[in-house]
Amino acid sequence: MVEKMKELVESWSFLDAAESNFRPLVVIELAKGTKEETIEWFTKRIVDKKANGGAQLLIKPLVTENGVENIYLVGASHLRLLLGAETVGLVKECSDNSMRTFTYSSRKTFKHFADDNHNFLTMAECQYIIKHELENLRAKNEKMIPGYPQAKLYPGKSIVRRLLTSGILVQIFPLHDREELKKLSHSWYGRVKVGYQPLDDIRCYFGETIALYFGFLEYFTFALIPMAVIGIPYYVFAWEDYDKYVMFATFNLLWSTVILEVWKRMCAILTYRWGTLLMKRQFEEPRPGFHGVLGINPVTGREEPVYSSIKRQLRIYLVSLPFVCLCLYFSLYVMMIYFDLEQWALDYDKENESVFSSLMLYVPSIIYAVVIEIMNRIYRYAAEFLTSWENHRLESSYQNHLILKVLVFNFLNCFASLFYIAFVLFDMKLLRQSLATLLITSQILNQFAESLLPYWLQKRYNRRMKKRMCSKKTDMDLSLAEQVNMEKEMGTYLGTFDDYLELFLQFGYVSLFSCVYPLAAVFAVLNNITEIYSDALKMCRVYKRPFAEPTASIGVWQLAFETMSVISVVTNCILIGMSPEVDALFPDSKMDLVLTVALVEHLLLAIKFIMAFVIPDKPRDIQMKLAKLEFESLEALKQQICLACL
Amino acid sequence: MVEKMKELVESWSFLDAAESNFRPLVVIELAKGTKEETIEWFTKRIVDKKANGGAQLLIKPLVTENGVENIYLVGASHLRLLLGAETVGLVKECSDNSMRTFTYSSRKTFKHFADDNHNFLTMAECQYIIKHELENLRAKNEKMIPGYPQAKLYPGKSIVRRLLTSGILVQIFPLHDREELKKLSHSWYGRVKVGYQPLDDIRCYFGETIALYFGFLEYFTFALIPMAVIGIPYYVFAWEDYDKYVMFATFNLLWSTVILEVWKRMCAILTYRWGTLLMKRQFEEPRPGFHGVLGINPVTGREEPVYSSIKRQLRIYLVSLPFVCLCLYFSLYVMMIYFDLEQWALDYDKENESVFSSLMLYVPSIIYAVVIEIMNRIYRYAAEFLTSWENHRLESSYQNHLILKVLVFNFLNCFASLFYIAFVLFDMKLLRQSLATLLITSQILNQFAESLLPYWLQKRYNRRMKKRMCSKKTDMDLSLAEQVNMEKEMGTYLGTFDDYLELFLQFGYVSLFSCVYPLAAVFAVLNNITEIYSDALKMCRVYKRPFAEPTASIGVWQLAFETMSVISVVTNCILIGMSPEVDALFPDSKMDLVLTVALVEHLLLAIKFIMAFVIPDKPRDIQMKLAKLEFESLEALKQQICLACL
Repeated sequence: MVEKMKELVESWSFLDAAESNFRPLVVIELAKGTKEETIEWFTKRIVDKKANGGAQLLIKPLVTENGVENIYLVGASHLRLLLGAETVGLVKECSDNSMRTFTYSSRKTFKHFADDNHNFLTMAECQYIIKHELENLRAKNEKMIPGYPQAKLYPGKSIVRRLLTSGILVQIFPLHDREELKKLSHSWYGRVKVGYQPLDDIRCYFGETIALYFGFLEYFTFALIPMAVIGIPYYVFAWEDYDKYVMFATFNLLWSTVILEVWKRMCAILTYRWGTLLMKRQFEEPRPGFHGVLGINPVTGREEPVYSSIKRQLRIYLVSLPFVCLCLYFSLYVMMIYFDLEQWALDYDKENESVFSSLMLYVPSIIYAVVIEIMNRIYRYAAEFLTSWENHRLESSYQNHLILKVLVFNFLNCFASLFYIAFVLFDMKLLRQSLATLLITSQILNQFAESLLPYWLQKRYNRRMKKRMCSKKTDMDLSLAEQVNMEKEMGTYLGTFDDYLELFLQFGYVSLFSCVYPLAAVFAVLNNITEIYSDALKMCRVYKRPFAEPTASIGVWQLAFETMSVISVVTNCILIGMSPEVDALFPDSKMDLVLTVALVEHLLLAIKFIMAFVIPDKPRDIQMKLAKLEFESLEALKQQICLACL
Repeated sequence: MVEKMKELVESWSFLDAAESNFRPLVVIELAKGTKEETIEWFTKRIVDKKANGGAQLLIKPLVTENGVENIYLVGASHLRLLLGAETVGLVKECSDNSMRTFTYSSRKTFKHFADDNHNFLTMAECQYIIKHELENLRAKNEKMIPGYPQAKLYPGKSIVRRLLTSGILVQIFPLHDREELKKLSHSWYGRVKVGYQPLDDIRCYFGETIALYFGFLEYFTFALIPMAVIGIPYYVFAWEDYDKYVMFATFNLLWSTVILEVWKRMCAILTYRWGTLLMKRQFEEPRPGFHGVLGINPVTGREEPVYSSIKRQLRIYLVSLPFVCLCLYFSLYVMMIYFDLEQWALDYDKENESVFSSLMLYVPSIIYAVVIEIMNRIYRYAAEFLTSWENHRLESSYQNHLILKVLVFNFLNCFASLFYIAFVLFDMKLLRQSLATLLITSQILNQFAESLLPYWLQKRYNRRMKKRMCSKKTDMDLSLAEQVNMEKEMGTYLGTFDDYLELFLQFGYVSLFSCVYPLAAVFAVLNNITEIYSDALKMCRVYKRPFAEPTASIGVWQLAFETMSVISVVTNCILIGMSPEVDALFPDSKMDLVLTVALVEHLLLAIKFIMAFVIPDKPRDIQMKLAKLEFESLEALKQQICLACL
């Protein structure tokens, strides 16, 4: 223990001597016209020693042809990064293949560690460490940001967050590694190939959250293939017998439970390999937008803004909840207009019976699908505004409230018309047609709006940029200054929320009415294959590199998908019960039919819950490895006590 | 850190000097005729220093009038107990009212701590520490127990467990504290009073598991009172309108969800106060009965018996599962005999129409209730035998499999006839009568078999004992030898399993058919009030004192109760749907009726799940306290790293 400390003390004090080669990792862009004293103070704090409350990082201004432009490059010495890895609690693989929390003193036991191996930490990890250190740069006695009296500070306040909210700091983003990116994009989407995505490489480059999304997308696509394969003959041979549909639906329901349970295991395998399964949760600081009167946090005992929980509850229940209900009502109102239009188109077709009029039959559905997408997007902004106005202290609580709001609305907005057609109009033909139109239109719109449009805009912008620079260099030959200038103009990737949401709605289209339209799974598979490519393109070419974010699971989305699969049991059972073929099996008594359907539904639900309970969330070998680590830490604790008795 | 160690080293080496007054805490009874060398070796190991692999406890033979009888009293010095408290990870209250893991070096910061205050640890805690130390007394190089070549040992095997399985060690049990017990029993059940049980005193005397059971029993009784109060007018005014029943059932269903959720919060409050909510889980050793070929445990890397998981699975699925199914079939068969008897009694009554024959009407139900109880008890032994034959490595896994087996059978055995009457015979009158008979008979039988019978037997035995000792002393004046001799003959309390099971079945009777027989809750409340008294009597007077067992929740029972409350939603909705009054509301279409019932059921289930999700499991102040502790430990970790930079 003592030796370890000594070693650590030495290593920290040797830090200054070790600044040999500066490798830019993160870019800080300050607003134009930021005062000199502010810049001086901020850079001093970044460079300053840990003991003086600094971040002990390296910083260099970016010099371009136009001179200094308030853009700074941040890096750190290899030693500093290793110490930072210990602070953020990175978990790396040891020489004996077990995963352990990295500590500087035990560094020699880790795989691929060598004092001169600067690739021991991936670039994404280094950037994550720097981001963590920058965000944890806290005010000491400063009452305000020097030069900006209106930007108040209090002891312990994150300086970077205050700079961001007061607009002095425009953005912080990690730099792309052009060479790595080229390699990655080649193996990821560069060639048409059958096979898996290079998830480990994606994780090394973009971090765990994004790699896990692509892992889920890939897993989900593979999991849909059996459903798609079974669904194709229904279309090809035009099977309309409901006993075949019953088989298909039953398979679907059990299959969707199995895939969600198996995903948990897959996820555990991935995140164990990446080390995030073992990473300890860090204490959550207030989120950037959180504001309140300065008070004492009862948990930390530190001075920070506090905001009464009752006020927040009032805002949630008196403003947000009514607003969401109003939006839901509006969405239902739009739905009723759609049905009027649909009726009008039918009448028109009957009257005219031309090619034009029969094409017109599809118009209301397409318009409705477009309107749904537009409403979803507008509501999204409103939900974000409201949730941020609710003033949640933690980012996680903010995210949960936002996701709940968005999910409820999107679910109703996308599926209400289908429910109405199925359970009020009892029109299976219309249901099938609507389902197909909605699914396909939303997929096309999404692909276009999410990836192709930004890609095209970005490409056009880049071409202009290059023209302005009057050079015909390829991306690889760009100077650092040019690279930074190009990347800082790229869009910011706003997280995996929209991507998961899209998958969630797709899962709804596939599973809720699967017994009516087995072809949905086929479209979903086709969409997801192109989705992988377009999302990959988006990550690599369209957006700024995002900071890596360690995560151990897909979080609340697992719950959302599971809820959807429970709802789909209910809808499918009702649909099957309503079918004329099943109806014909109970010629005497409708009661028996309904009771049988209800019984089957309850049995299916029971089987689902039992399956979810019986299938372990982690594979046996991961369980063993976790147990081993727990055992070791308990033994180490005992050793500490026992050492003393000798 | 270094200072702490030095202090600890000193305290351990001062241990020998501190043996001033010996307070007997735990009794060890060896078999008669145990070889001298075995006793010598065993006692030496108990007394030996920790550094030599001993337990460093104090031991004295019990000398009675008949000389030494192979009974030993185990105690420990105050200092040794404090160090043991650190080893087992006890959590105690600090001077600043926060709960913290006790460590010897930080002892001064704890409330009521003083070097001469021997009541800082409760007697139950001391006994738990001694049990833990004895069970962790492990073989070093011994190949067998000296004197018993057939009792094999291997390095790391718990000596006490081997002694127990080879019959050399008859039993280990903690001593009662006559004075404390008298105080406790007076405040607990000694006077007729309205009010709460002294849960904190019970916890101090019997430990957390038992106190939590009594806490749950009390909470559950209070929670049933609203149901009982609402149920009484149904009996008094003979309300038979189903709209009133509907109201009652709806209230019941939501209420049962609320009480189960609120219990989690109550439980968190109790266990936080007792420190067990914060206690770290210890590594689980193989359970005493576990056997196998000597191999290497992949988790610990130690030599210990291993038993292939596939063999265990085979035993479970090829033997246990078919056996359980057979028992379930048998139970249903017995049920059918009961219905034959019931029919016969009805016919007999019709033929004779005498007082005797009308009394005979109740006989089949009573016989069936008795048979159910007997079958439950026999099955219990079979389930225990089978589960132990399945050879589970961990006690927790053994318990889970046992509980699952017993719950499934008891559920079917107790409720199958009611389900049959309700949903096959559609005979609500018979249902009400059966329910009443089953509930009341099982309550009377349970109270008798569990508490009164053992109490009476124990009392008779004690009287004989005292007569043999030719003294007319009261319990208080007994010498230590007499007390030990009396207590060692008392029955052993086998844990809270049966007590929880009884409550579980009672909950079933109350909630499954609540809309038919609202009076069930009244009987349950009455039963539980006497149950508290008889269980308290049982704990204090009938059984040996059990070892305290720290626990943070009622474990798998929470899940069992929640499952029951989900099932009761389904049964109650069906019952209401079947009632003629509700039937009359839908004169035209039976379909509408069934669909409405199904809709209501799904809504209720959805509300239940949302409620379970929305109500936080821990009250806000406990959450804050836990967050504070987590924050402090994270800060301490950071401090350790940061200390190094100065």
